Amino acid sequence: MTSARYPLPDLNTLPEDIKTQVLAVQEKAGFIPNVYHDALMTPEAVGRRSGLSKGEREMIVTTTSAANQCLYCVVAHGAILRIYEKKPMLADQVAVNHRKADISARQRAMLDFAMKVCQASHEIEDADFEALHAHGFDDEDAWDIAAITAFFGLSNRMASFSGMTPNPEFYLMGRVPRPT
Amino acid sequence: MTSARYPLPDLNTLPEDIKTQVLAVQEKAGFIPNVYHDALMTPEAVGRRSGLSKGEREMIVTTTSAANQCLYCVVAHGAILRIYEKKPMLADQVAVNHRKADISARQRAMLDFAMKVCQASHEIEDADFEALHAHGFDDEDAWDIAAITAFFGLSNRMASFSGMTPNPEFYLMGRVPRPT
Amino acid sequence: MTSARYPLPDLNTLPEDIKTQVLAVQEKAGFIPNVYHDALMTPEAVGRRSGLSKGEREMIVTTTSAANQCLYCVVAHGAILRIYEKKPMLADQVAVNHRKADISARQRAMLDFAMKVCQASHEIEDADFEALHAHGFDDEDAWDIAAITAFFGLSNRMASFSGMTPNPEFYLMGRVPRPT
Amino acid sequence: MTSARYPLPDLNTLPEDIKTQVLAVQEKAGFIPNVYHDALMTPEAVGRRSGLSKGEREMIVTTTSAANQCLYCVVAHGAILRIYEKKPMLADQVAVNHRKADISARQRAMLDFAMKVCQASHEIEDADFEALHAHGFDDEDAWDIAAITAFFGLSNRMASFSGMTPNPEFYLMGRVPRPT
Amino acid sequence: MTSARYPLPDLNTLPEDIKTQVLAVQEKAGFIPNVYHDALMTPEAVGRRSGLSKGEREMIVTTTSAANQCLYCVVAHGAILRIYEKKPMLADQVAVNHRKADISARQRAMLDFAMKVCQASHEIEDADFEALHAHGFDDEDAWDIAAITAFFGLSNRMASFSGMTPNPEFYLMGRVPRPT
Amino acid sequence: MTSARYPLPDLNTLPEDIKTQVLAVQEKAGFIPNVYHDALMTPEAVGRRSGLSKGEREMIVTTTSAANQCLYCVVAHGAILRIYEKKPMLADQVAVNHRKADISARQRAMLDFAMKVCQASHEIEDADFEALHAHGFDDEDAWDIAAITAFFGLSNRMASFSGMTPNPEFYLMGRVPRPT
Repeated sequence: MTSARYPLPDLNTLPEDIKTQVLAVQEKAGFIPNVYHDALMTPEAVGRRSGLSKGEREMIVTTTSAANQCLYCVVAHGAILRIYEKKPMLADQVAVNHRKADISARQRAMLDFAMKVCQASHEIEDADFEALHAHGFDDEDAWDIAAITAFFGLSNRMASFSGMTPNPEFYLMGRVPRPT
Repeated sequence: MTSARYPLPDLNTLPEDIKTQVLAVQEKAGFIPNVYHDALMTPEAVGRRSGLSKGEREMIVTTTSAANQCLYCVVAHGAILRIYEKKPMLADQVAVNHRKADISARQRAMLDFAMKVCQASHEIEDADFEALHAHGFDDEDAWDIAAITAFFGLSNRMASFSGMTPNPEFYLMGRVPRPT
Repeated sequence: MTSARYPLPDLNTLPEDIKTQVLAVQEKAGFIPNVYHDALMTPEAVGRRSGLSKGEREMIVTTTSAANQCLYCVVAHGAILRIYEKKPMLADQVAVNHRKADISARQRAMLDFAMKVCQASHEIEDADFEALHAHGFDDEDAWDIAAITAFFGLSNRMASFSGMTPNPEFYLMGRVPRPT
Repeated sequence: MTSARYPLPDLNTLPEDIKTQVLAVQEKAGFIPNVYHDALMTPEAVGRRSGLSKGEREMIVTTTSAANQCLYCVVAHGAILRIYEKKPMLADQVAVNHRKADISARQRAMLDFAMKVCQASHEIEDADFEALHAHGFDDEDAWDIAAITAFFGLSNRMASFSGMTPNPEFYLMGRVPRPT
Repeated sequence: MTSARYPLPDLNTLPEDIKTQVLAVQEKAGFIPNVYHDALMTPEAVGRRSGLSKGEREMIVTTTSAANQCLYCVVAHGAILRIYEKKPMLADQVAVNHRKADISARQRAMLDFAMKVCQASHEIEDADFEALHAHGFDDEDAWDIAAITAFFGLSNRMASFSGMTPNPEFYLMGRVPRPT
Repeated sequence: MTSARYPLPDLNTLPEDIKTQVLAVQEKAGFIPNVYHDALMTPEAVGRRSGLSKGEREMIVTTTSAANQCLYCVVAHGAILRIYEKKPMLADQVAVNHRKADISARQRAMLDFAMKVCQASHEIEDADFEALHAHGFDDEDAWDIAAITAFFGLSNRMASFSGMTPNPEFYLMGRVPRPT
């Protein structure tokens, strides 16, 4: 009954502390909630599985944070994106409209998938995975794109809600050569 | 420049591992990113600060997960909500329309705030906090409402994206007396 | 000038009272308004024409009522859906996200059509009918899907507006064996 | 548990056929579904209760049908609106933007309420009724505004779905003096 | 770096006054902003380039002005549309729902493109141009459709904001034979 | 019948060429369309009437262009905004979320009004003007805010539709001291 795409991991492959927690829940509830299927989606695991580059990860963060209108994340992660990709104009481009950014068709597909996770995750279907596969992404890449998007959806909401503002240093980082 | 509402914690009050990480970033970047202001918002911390009851936490989860159309979380956390609140009809009510649910005016204000964090966090302003304060919630409660909402926004997206389905046991839990 | 898909019925095939009303309007206005073309769409006629099963009708009601956030109809018709289909989990599934429900591809197409009638009837075009035909539905079935959706759109609005709440009995019906 | 605003009618005040149907359901289900509370909301009853004028009823139909982008109802009921109100420009005004129409403040409040029933009935609350009361409408008027809106929401969906087009005669009716 | 579809015009082909302005900006800024690429998109130029008929231009205005709920433009340009096309019912049809209007497939494609420029210009991509090309429109026609839509988007906002109302004469123009 | 807020100008105060055009239309149509009321809203006039500073005008352009997701205008006018206001971080702030920008309460009210003209001009009412008046803006200022917003709504659509990209120079302008 769980997802065929991402099958339940063998209990014995889980880290010991998580395994212990799962068994305790099973003892109490009489069954293992399927959410433990996602046990590896801890913050530590975010970004570990796939072949996405560091720059591509920041591209996802900047694009989806702009959709969520999160000032902190757009400015801070936009800075990191500029640095990783060595493209001083890229962050502004994906923040305003990723369809007009100077990126590859593969990266465009990656960002389209991320935007759908960000704005309409309940509508994601097989066709969305197929669109990724057509550009060489596999299901582990898809997981990573979704996890980065979902995790920063959390950060976006906390940063906006709490009025967190970006450090002034971020605004210029990656736009000009680093002072020597 | 950071939020006046939630001031930056004293570095020395942070757990040792987080403090070490913060200092390493400062060494490298030349400044401490304001996001470390939110250092305590780890999954472990979610739900720790406030006076929200366990039932109220699940009320937030069920309501906002329904807004995100996440089948797993509505069914699984709806079950836990029924159990904590000992109200077998409550989960269905908040999932369909929290405005029609059999809850207190205070809980209604709590869910209105949660729904705004869920759907328009970029528009949250002082007036939203004041609406909570009018019902006796303080800023730590507000943080908790937002953190629960934001954390399950992450879970909702991962569960929907990956096609995670609820265990059959959840559907009936809390609706009928537990078998003895 | 009327719909080619659903041609105007012969006046003489109409029930006598409707025929009389039509002729009176014609006498007064000088023409027969095309709406009489839909003369058979009385509440009595809803659900009569097609090969939809009783369970499928309730599936449509529960799904579209959830989209309209109508507490009464989701709970009451969800109960009837569980009973007709003998599937105690189905109502919760279609209410939260029909794309994740345990239904056939044919039923999925039926609900997609119903949701478009519910939310964007002005955008329905030939391609939407063709999507139904591909699953064996004919135009009479399409009429029935639309009529059920439209009729409960009326009920949803009245129930929500007037604050009608479901009887407590509905919440559990069809989830557990009927008491003997 | 039903709406305090519109209390359940005494069974004995219902028409005999409806009373019979209610008792049969009670016999079978063991309780009377609260929807029978709305038993009087049959098509025959629409428009019977309140002090709305005929012109005001058509104003509601034309405004909400335009929001639903229903060609038949905007054109046909716009014609009737022009005739009842003897204002040849009014139908076009409410169809495009009722906020700019040449109507009274009372009628503006009536149309605002109707538009909320049309587009967000799940959000209707006491404050919406109070806005009507401030203009002299009572709860029976509110029921009527809602019922007209909801009923034509049904008609709008069926007319759009089935491709029903207005008779050519309607376009000009009420714009020029009736030919003698 | 500018649009390949609409290449930068040769400076020497520009009208003298615009050329002077461009050179002054270049002198001051050190470069020519790409917006001068659009130098010919002055109000005077709107509607000059393409093979659209006068009636088609008004069709675009009426349809998109209705989407923007601009009373002045729907009524005034609807009148002009009726006159140019000699179709007394057409303006009401495209204003309510252009998908149901009595127009050619080519005109439907033209209005679909206009509506996308009106409501989601940031999402326009090559496929949208290809949909126009399939009906015989070239890129100059596309420019014209977009320019008319964008220009009246400006007018719609000013007319609505300022409360401009249509002259009474417009409501009837083109519906009945002109008085002789 | 025209706006009381912005009364029709005396024909004799209009520039000669516009007056001639108006009289020609009057000759042909038999009346003066109310749109000539807005005769002064030519591109030349945009920005002439009010007490808005140059920086405030660019603030409006950058904020509303971001809402329209127009890459060219956000980057180019964001640059000009930085230069006029001598605030290197301001453009990024208003582009992502103007509610979080480092601006005065008066400027916030100005941008709220601009955003409503940009996204829902048909809903603008007296209360929106009053909100401006409370911050010292008069109706001429309101006109200017609306005109700038509406004019760049036109530019945004043309730039996005045609794929116009910002000159690379704009990205850094106003972020660092101008090279000497």
